[in-house]
Amino acid sequence: MLVNGIPGNTISIRDRGLLYGDGVFRTLRASQGKVQHWPLHYQKLQHDCHALGIACPSFDLLSAELGELLVRHPDGVVKLIVTRGLGMRGYVPPAGGEPTRIWDVSPLPQYPSDNVTRGIKARVCDLRLSAQPRLAGIKHLNRLENVLAAAEWDDAEIAEGLLLDADGHVIEGTRSNLFLVVHGGLVTPDLSRCGVAGGQRERVMAWAVQHNVSLQVRDVSLDEVLQADELFLVNSIIGLWPVRELQQRCWDAFPLAARIAQYLESGEA
Amino acid sequence: MLVNGIPGNTISIRDRGLLYGDGVFRTLRASQGKVQHWPLHYQKLQHDCHALGIACPSFDLLSAELGELLVRHPDGVVKLIVTRGLGMRGYVPPAGGEPTRIWDVSPLPQYPSDNVTRGIKARVCDLRLSAQPRLAGIKHLNRLENVLAAAEWDDAEIAEGLLLDADGHVIEGTRSNLFLVVHGGLVTPDLSRCGVAGGQRERVMAWAVQHNVSLQVRDVSLDEVLQADELFLVNSIIGLWPVRELQQRCWDAFPLAARIAQYLESGEA
Repeated sequence: MLVNGIPGNTISIRDRGLLYGDGVFRTLRASQGKVQHWPLHYQKLQHDCHALGIACPSFDLLSAELGELLVRHPDGVVKLIVTRGLGMRGYVPPAGGEPTRIWDVSPLPQYPSDNVTRGIKARVCDLRLSAQPRLAGIKHLNRLENVLAAAEWDDAEIAEGLLLDADGHVIEGTRSNLFLVVHGGLVTPDLSRCGVAGGQRERVMAWAVQHNVSLQVRDVSLDEVLQADELFLVNSIIGLWPVRELQQRCWDAFPLAARIAQYLESGEA
Repeated sequence: MLVNGIPGNTISIRDRGLLYGDGVFRTLRASQGKVQHWPLHYQKLQHDCHALGIACPSFDLLSAELGELLVRHPDGVVKLIVTRGLGMRGYVPPAGGEPTRIWDVSPLPQYPSDNVTRGIKARVCDLRLSAQPRLAGIKHLNRLENVLAAAEWDDAEIAEGLLLDADGHVIEGTRSNLFLVVHGGLVTPDLSRCGVAGGQRERVMAWAVQHNVSLQVRDVSLDEVLQADELFLVNSIIGLWPVRELQQRCWDAFPLAARIAQYLESGEA
């Protein structure tokens, strides 16, 4: 655990990350002292900081801190938070403020191996995501919608919940991005009004382009999700989970998802 | 500064208040060792905790901590934050978790006395609030919309910005609630889809009922705001500020606002 480069596990109660959720984060998978796709994550961090007007710490500085962390914790889930830092009272962002850099490591969660091979059971959450184009796509610290959605069920059989917006479009999972296979091509929801554009989503999209598989980023209805040929969820920790069951619909073959999962696991750029 | 009853100014980097903005807060005005309307604020804290499924600390516990704080800091802005506390990794709220209680005090801001007597210049923010009925009204820690809106202007002449929703309804100020005087009665925006229902708003509404002044809580358009007989903004720190100028419209008399301001300042229940 590092806070602004110093070993420690606390931050100031005046940090704007706590006061307003005024910051962004990344979740990385560390394995044998290496983190997968760190440059991609940094690029997304930089994008998200820019969108909020937070001065993103340099790649060199964060890479050095990550290296230090991995020496002591070679395996696990690495979380990096960058907040706008300390502020005077009030919402107005202080000029020239120094961002806070927070690194934490937790053990890798133990998911059933079936999640990857057989696929998971998913549900549709009751909570509807709100539309805020200014924050859409950003992995920021205002995550109460995800918390409320994740609290909706406690059936351990259900591994993930799908989130819809108020217009009934399917946007994402509570902690993952969604892809549909339709007529051999990939479809993933448009995230310009809500949702988080994860790093793993980007890798799947890059795979489609590289392999001449058609890719559409657009609004997707629940009906369309239920009628997809395959359905799968991705994030940097779980990798790729096909969906085996959603509402009354069941799937039992995931040929395209399996190819993509193999690529994601191979760790290729 | 107290954290869980112990003098200190830090919290864990694993506190869900930081990780997800998973908590609520109150802002109180302390004067000569007393805080105004503490029972009302506690009631609202309890309501907000309940809405998020956070176990609200007891009135006695928080009152004791507040008393301790006021001995050392008799005057200033007192901020109370209650988060869901520490959690394992992931959005799912831990069962039986212990909330974190955070108290902080800052000096009272020095606003021009003209703000109260002559009224302020306000502007309309570009940012549009998103609609989320599950979080509407709650003073929670997901405040990035307020941060983005407050960052829109740096003209010191403009004391507050008004926030509209995506449908063009006027909802509130970036850190205050809004009232219109229309035909001698009060109108305040409906906060069932977005906005924060502040303690001072509640007191103004109670005043209207006590004084047989008609009160409507409903959707309000910007046109209607610009055509109001009087316009004013309230919160627990500023008290009541009439609006003297908004877009091309100017106001120079605030008879009803002045009566209400007097009542709010008197500190009556």
